[in-house]
Amino acid sequence: MTRRQLTECIREKGSYLCVGLDTDPAKIPALLHSYADPVFEFNKRTIDATRDHCVAYKINTAFYESLGSKGWDSMERTVRYIPPTHFTIADAKRGDIGNTSTQYAKAFFETLSFDAVTVAPYMGEDSVRPFLEFKDKWTILLGLTSNSGARDFEMQRTGDEYLYEKVLKTASSWGSPDNLMFVVGATQAHAFEGIRRLVPDHFFLVPGVGAQGGSLGTISAKAMNPDVGLLINVSRDIIYASAGEDFAECAAVRAQGYQLEMEKYLIDR
Amino acid sequence: MTRRQLTECIREKGSYLCVGLDTDPAKIPALLHSYADPVFEFNKRTIDATRDHCVAYKINTAFYESLGSKGWDSMERTVRYIPPTHFTIADAKRGDIGNTSTQYAKAFFETLSFDAVTVAPYMGEDSVRPFLEFKDKWTILLGLTSNSGARDFEMQRTGDEYLYEKVLKTASSWGSPDNLMFVVGATQAHAFEGIRRLVPDHFFLVPGVGAQGGSLGTISAKAMNPDVGLLINVSRDIIYASAGEDFAECAAVRAQGYQLEMEKYLIDR
Repeated sequence: MTRRQLTECIREKGSYLCVGLDTDPAKIPALLHSYADPVFEFNKRTIDATRDHCVAYKINTAFYESLGSKGWDSMERTVRYIPPTHFTIADAKRGDIGNTSTQYAKAFFETLSFDAVTVAPYMGEDSVRPFLEFKDKWTILLGLTSNSGARDFEMQRTGDEYLYEKVLKTASSWGSPDNLMFVVGATQAHAFEGIRRLVPDHFFLVPGVGAQGGSLGTISAKAMNPDVGLLINVSRDIIYASAGEDFAECAAVRAQGYQLEMEKYLIDR
Repeated sequence: MTRRQLTECIREKGSYLCVGLDTDPAKIPALLHSYADPVFEFNKRTIDATRDHCVAYKINTAFYESLGSKGWDSMERTVRYIPPTHFTIADAKRGDIGNTSTQYAKAFFETLSFDAVTVAPYMGEDSVRPFLEFKDKWTILLGLTSNSGARDFEMQRTGDEYLYEKVLKTASSWGSPDNLMFVVGATQAHAFEGIRRLVPDHFFLVPGVGAQGGSLGTISAKAMNPDVGLLINVSRDIIYASAGEDFAECAAVRAQGYQLEMEKYLIDR
């Protein structure tokens, strides 16, 4: 999916919502455990219920890997089930020396056919470039994350800027707004305007709204650009909206709530 | 495996060699492709041939993930096949917000029963601590890596030190030499003495000897501590010592070569 297609999709739907499928078998309704693949069944129903309200799905690979190869099977089934109209993100936070990063890129872009994968920047250019070399695929690099540990290194000063600013500036010369996005956590509202000035054209994948407490309104006001430039991810607040058998209906209601709020911000601009 | 057990194992064998199983189906001998799981068959024969010369095996998860769930199966079979006398490392370079890092830790420490997993530090304390909370397991945090991209961020100054020095100092307060090691690349020989002064008691996992050109002698002279404190990883130079049917015998010869050199450095001290 190209940047233009993603923006068109957002405008048509009035939504820049990404639903995060952090599916934990311990948290899904008991009735699903009679299915051969309870995690996939949960995801399938969640996707069916929320697809009209979102433009993207993000699969948090950790929750699938913790189940071993059957978890990897559930992930494969899930990504194949997501409609081709939706942007798919492997939230995998990979990154290694060149020949290894190429293998990770193959895993997510070719074997699993995701549109995008999240990548950690610590190891620098040659750990990131292999992902950027895949045509029509997206690299989503960690910039400033939503967790408290962001203070330990990301927010340390390197010369006259923060490390995360150096990461954004440096990495924006490796890729372009057509194949590179950044992760910027919603809990870092104070930093959004500065970050938008630094990388005016790139899309941001924004976690931290919902369970982590970030404000959708604030982020939208501070960081929307002419292409919209935002994918707001919500995971737990949507997929676990109900612990009962009505989980999918409740997920739909919650997703629609976000979509309606987003529609307002899109019209206001 | 405890630090004391690891050191005893190294002294008994006269080896601090870790064999890296970066197994790429495109590079393994044709005769193995008739097996149901060629990657496992290659690993099995490599392990049988090298186990007397090394104390650890490191599985580079990227090479398995690129094959999808059947790659994950090969990884499970391989880690189960490694003798319990050997230290097992998942080279996965994971790291995410707390509840996600816990899932990664479960994936590698519980579902797959590795002794250790490599972790990226960018997201800070709460992305690393969940790994450290698993009893009798090891976290191996990226410090200064062997690739050229190390210059982009790891070797940037933060205040009066390099970022990688801040990572080593800060993280050594999160764990202890009994559950935390650091990745320090062999190509960074100039930095080893300083790093050893900074974290005198921790083990280092050292990639970059062999195909990447780091010197075993230099690293051993600069960074060995009273507990030895080194695991030197060699991947391609051992597992692809021959592209023919004699790959396992050639791997054994190459591994023994490293072991004999290491024995000398251990006796010299």
